[in-house]
Amino acid sequence: MRIWREGRWLSEVEQKLEKMGLELPEPARPAGSYVGTVISGGFAFTAGQGPGKAPDGETYRGKVGKDLTVEEGYEAAKSTMLRVLAQLKAALGDLDRVERIVKVSGYINSAEDFTNQPAVLNGASDLLVELYGEKGQHAREALPVSVEGWIACEISMIVKIKE
Amino acid sequence: MRIWREGRWLSEVEQKLEKMGLELPEPARPAGSYVGTVISGGFAFTAGQGPGKAPDGETYRGKVGKDLTVEEGYEAAKSTMLRVLAQLKAALGDLDRVERIVKVSGYINSAEDFTNQPAVLNGASDLLVELYGEKGQHAREALPVSVEGWIACEISMIVKIKE
Amino acid sequence: MRIWREGRWLSEVEQKLEKMGLELPEPARPAGSYVGTVISGGFAFTAGQGPGKAPDGETYRGKVGKDLTVEEGYEAAKSTMLRVLAQLKAALGDLDRVERIVKVSGYINSAEDFTNQPAVLNGASDLLVELYGEKGQHAREALPVSVEGWIACEISMIVKIKE
Repeated sequence: MRIWREGRWLSEVEQKLEKMGLELPEPARPAGSYVGTVISGGFAFTAGQGPGKAPDGETYRGKVGKDLTVEEGYEAAKSTMLRVLAQLKAALGDLDRVERIVKVSGYINSAEDFTNQPAVLNGASDLLVELYGEKGQHAREALPVSVEGWIACEISMIVKIKE
Repeated sequence: MRIWREGRWLSEVEQKLEKMGLELPEPARPAGSYVGTVISGGFAFTAGQGPGKAPDGETYRGKVGKDLTVEEGYEAAKSTMLRVLAQLKAALGDLDRVERIVKVSGYINSAEDFTNQPAVLNGASDLLVELYGEKGQHAREALPVSVEGWIACEISMIVKIKE
Repeated sequence: MRIWREGRWLSEVEQKLEKMGLELPEPARPAGSYVGTVISGGFAFTAGQGPGKAPDGETYRGKVGKDLTVEEGYEAAKSTMLRVLAQLKAALGDLDRVERIVKVSGYINSAEDFTNQPAVLNGASDLLVELYGEKGQHAREALPVSVEGWIACEISMIVKIKE
């Protein structure tokens, strides 16, 4: 159930985030001439997002398996999913309007011999399942990219919304 | 037409596979906290799948153009599509419920100067057209990735299903 | 409004292209066993396309940040979007049937330390917004790939169409 708090409604999903000690960031401004989310034909399509700040205050950046451990990559993916959800909330108004998380595409910045992209992307997937339960179970692809100094990962999502 | 065989219905598509000497593998267990296929809004979205075993009994692994020939890459893509179809069957119950193969995304593990990703992904595309005819004609993207020791390719698919 | 010209209707979008001094190329023949666009469930899904010719008559090819400048990459992405639109027109008959550009996926051939994929993909995104205004505002992902001598970028698109 939504609750009223400090002058606004808090969705069930945001209440869960709060209990987990997590917070939705401000939705990032698009880095080019596009928008954060498009709603069309009953689906919401989010733009690719990158991670926010690591505990050291710096953006998660670099290759997993070289600059970042798998655990740091997991946290980067979790942080990125919070930013994807922030975009979704800005578009939907209310994160409880999600009917199903359909598809997650995750591109993991990877060392030349790093093959465990799935363990990294679980940082995003685990969060979705914790927040949405069965509705949060999604198809996904975990893919490697490789650029020095690039963000640790980029994630986009397709969501079915309640009409 | 479906036929009754050994206590179960065999879809037209599975009869064709049989004539081609091919078999659907067991659907692979997800390598993380996600599911093999999500059905939503009239579409089925499969998770990215990797190839099964090569004739030598080992999983197709490594970069096309360096560790694998184009022909081996083609076989790896075909093997991967069988695994995508296995996921789809697990979700749909019956592969004849496919109305149209809509989109195939193929990520080919590529040597640093290998540019013929389309010839590799044809291993998946040719199989779809053989099995489904016109309904199997799909849009696709054939993209390079590059990681030592990674699977030879990863493929995901969007399918329109009969309601 | 569509106008009649040289024995055929010219859509609003094509009139705009003409004013911008741009022309839709012939739709490229698929480089494998697939089709240029699939229309299904109210959406059009285009196959990934590569760029056309640069001013020197050669196809835009190579890595941005090494073989190509960002500006050349921008032009390559713009040229690629014209080829995506050519596929869309071949499938829809009329580019004014677009209800919304939903999602653009852009894969930029990138030098090992090149991180400004968004600036390159703007070549495609800016064109869409110029042609379609608000309907052209899309979600997108700008991703790096890296292969010597590969095309400068590959772009695919999901579009909502008027029924």
